[in-house]
Amino acid sequence: MEKKHEQYDVVIIGGGAAGLSAGIYAGRAGLKTLIIEKTLIGGLANNANEISNYPGFPEEISGEELMKLFKKQAEKFGVKFKLTDVKKVDLIPEDKTVETFSNIYHARAVIVASGGQPRLTGAAGEERFLYGRGISFCATCDADHYIGKHVLIVGSGDAAIEEGIFLTRFTDQVTVSVMHSEGVMDAGRIVQAQALANPKMKFRWNTVVDSFVGKEELTAVVLKNIKTGELSPVEVDGCFLFIGYEPDTELFKEQLPMTADGYLVTDEQMQTGVPGVFAAGDVRQKFIRQVSTAVGDGAIAGAGAEKHIYVKDGKAVCVE
Amino acid sequence: MEKKHEQYDVVIIGGGAAGLSAGIYAGRAGLKTLIIEKTLIGGLANNANEISNYPGFPEEISGEELMKLFKKQAEKFGVKFKLTDVKKVDLIPEDKTVETFSNIYHARAVIVASGGQPRLTGAAGEERFLYGRGISFCATCDADHYIGKHVLIVGSGDAAIEEGIFLTRFTDQVTVSVMHSEGVMDAGRIVQAQALANPKMKFRWNTVVDSFVGKEELTAVVLKNIKTGELSPVEVDGCFLFIGYEPDTELFKEQLPMTADGYLVTDEQMQTGVPGVFAAGDVRQKFIRQVSTAVGDGAIAGAGAEKHIYVKDGKAVCVE
Repeated sequence: MEKKHEQYDVVIIGGGAAGLSAGIYAGRAGLKTLIIEKTLIGGLANNANEISNYPGFPEEISGEELMKLFKKQAEKFGVKFKLTDVKKVDLIPEDKTVETFSNIYHARAVIVASGGQPRLTGAAGEERFLYGRGISFCATCDADHYIGKHVLIVGSGDAAIEEGIFLTRFTDQVTVSVMHSEGVMDAGRIVQAQALANPKMKFRWNTVVDSFVGKEELTAVVLKNIKTGELSPVEVDGCFLFIGYEPDTELFKEQLPMTADGYLVTDEQMQTGVPGVFAAGDVRQKFIRQVSTAVGDGAIAGAGAEKHIYVKDGKAVCVE
Repeated sequence: MEKKHEQYDVVIIGGGAAGLSAGIYAGRAGLKTLIIEKTLIGGLANNANEISNYPGFPEEISGEELMKLFKKQAEKFGVKFKLTDVKKVDLIPEDKTVETFSNIYHARAVIVASGGQPRLTGAAGEERFLYGRGISFCATCDADHYIGKHVLIVGSGDAAIEEGIFLTRFTDQVTVSVMHSEGVMDAGRIVQAQALANPKMKFRWNTVVDSFVGKEELTAVVLKNIKTGELSPVEVDGCFLFIGYEPDTELFKEQLPMTADGYLVTDEQMQTGVPGVFAAGDVRQKFIRQVSTAVGDGAIAGAGAEKHIYVKDGKAVCVE
């Protein structure tokens, strides 16, 4: 089957908060813009039952509702959407191509907003309690659900331990499951010392998650001692996994600069170093992964694509 | 009169989009937070009759309405507000102080979100037509009001000429008032060449604005030839001033790193280089000045202040 060729000014890979924001900016700048999303428009934000820190919504809003508003706004500015997988990209030439099962999209600028997902433990019961049901990935987002409660943290890197310290401000107790031997953590020394001195933090060394337990909501996490094999249930109100994040960047290897962990590296203008190719949102090497910061990234990337096309190329596909 | 001393975790200087967003993040993190604003909560965004590119508001919203929502959200998280001038700051010590007429606020972290304002020509009639009445400062924001119309651009730097080229996509004609002799612009060579080759762009060399004319809305700009003194009215539907921007950073001289133009320099985590001092929004050296990017900056600065206080200091003033 011959693939169909279509020309766009801007192709955005990923339809989460960053991709939609980039779309709003590119579309409003009069650029013919396509967003390709592999699963659900709105991306990871769809999993948030309520978002209370995206400025403009003092009454809280579900991630799904907020992403619907983003999408509507992008559509208003003429942005097109395709729900499909990207199979292949060629980002280096001036005529960039993004290939799906049945189409080859040509673009003058490409914005990579493919996001990623937090790494899971793979333990039994995990899928049932993800997001709103007890397993969480963002202390900034969810800390205030756990005032006076007990939460378990899985992981011992900087994120795990720093977020653990932060959570002690809200919770009664924070138990940390660390797979290493007593006293060994992956976090920096200062953070480790702080955590060990914090009376609200308890450590379970040599443990990994064996299973997640509960009816509707998570009520306990069964830890397994990797030295003795002993299983011990820990009753908790919630669990935060900080065992890594997997950016969706497999497609861009050997085309875009990335860190050892696979995050795309950009400058503050969201430029990847390849002319006309920008990255925005969770897929980037960055400080905090929030709708607010995805929006900032997306706006910059959209404006950057506009500038690249209007000023550098001086011509754009006509859309009215 | 002895000034009153008050202790906060975070003091935010400036209550525009960036300061409010930083407040939402700091407040929600359980930090005792104060925002000090010298004129109007909401800052420059209050001047926008409608904002159509802040993601989440597909139906458009006035800047004033949007900023009210930001403020309400910050208040919900316990953020306090003071409407007053900051007279003096001492940002270097761990115990940072921000002084107003009657108070000395102590803070563990300070976020500078003092913004700034676009430079004006000072010509007669200017004040009457600012913002919604014909004089504009942001092509990305206002281009779509001028479809098929004629606009005047004042300035010849990169911003002026690039935005002029961008505006030709929407308008019938863009006239550029340049104070230099024929062919001389402050913009880069490539951009200049593009502009000169653009059939929709006309140049009025050796001119400055003498006055702005109109009844309710701007209808003409009178240009003055600085060589001959000759006055000539140009009938226009709108005018964009790109003659610079003045960040409000006088207070921070010799305490925070800034560019020759007075913008604060930060890294991507909004850190100024002085521990515990962050900057966010228009006051920063940055790519595009939009509510969307102010929100991203503010979220990062708020989270940065949180991390500085909880992880580095390990203690915060209690708020419940």
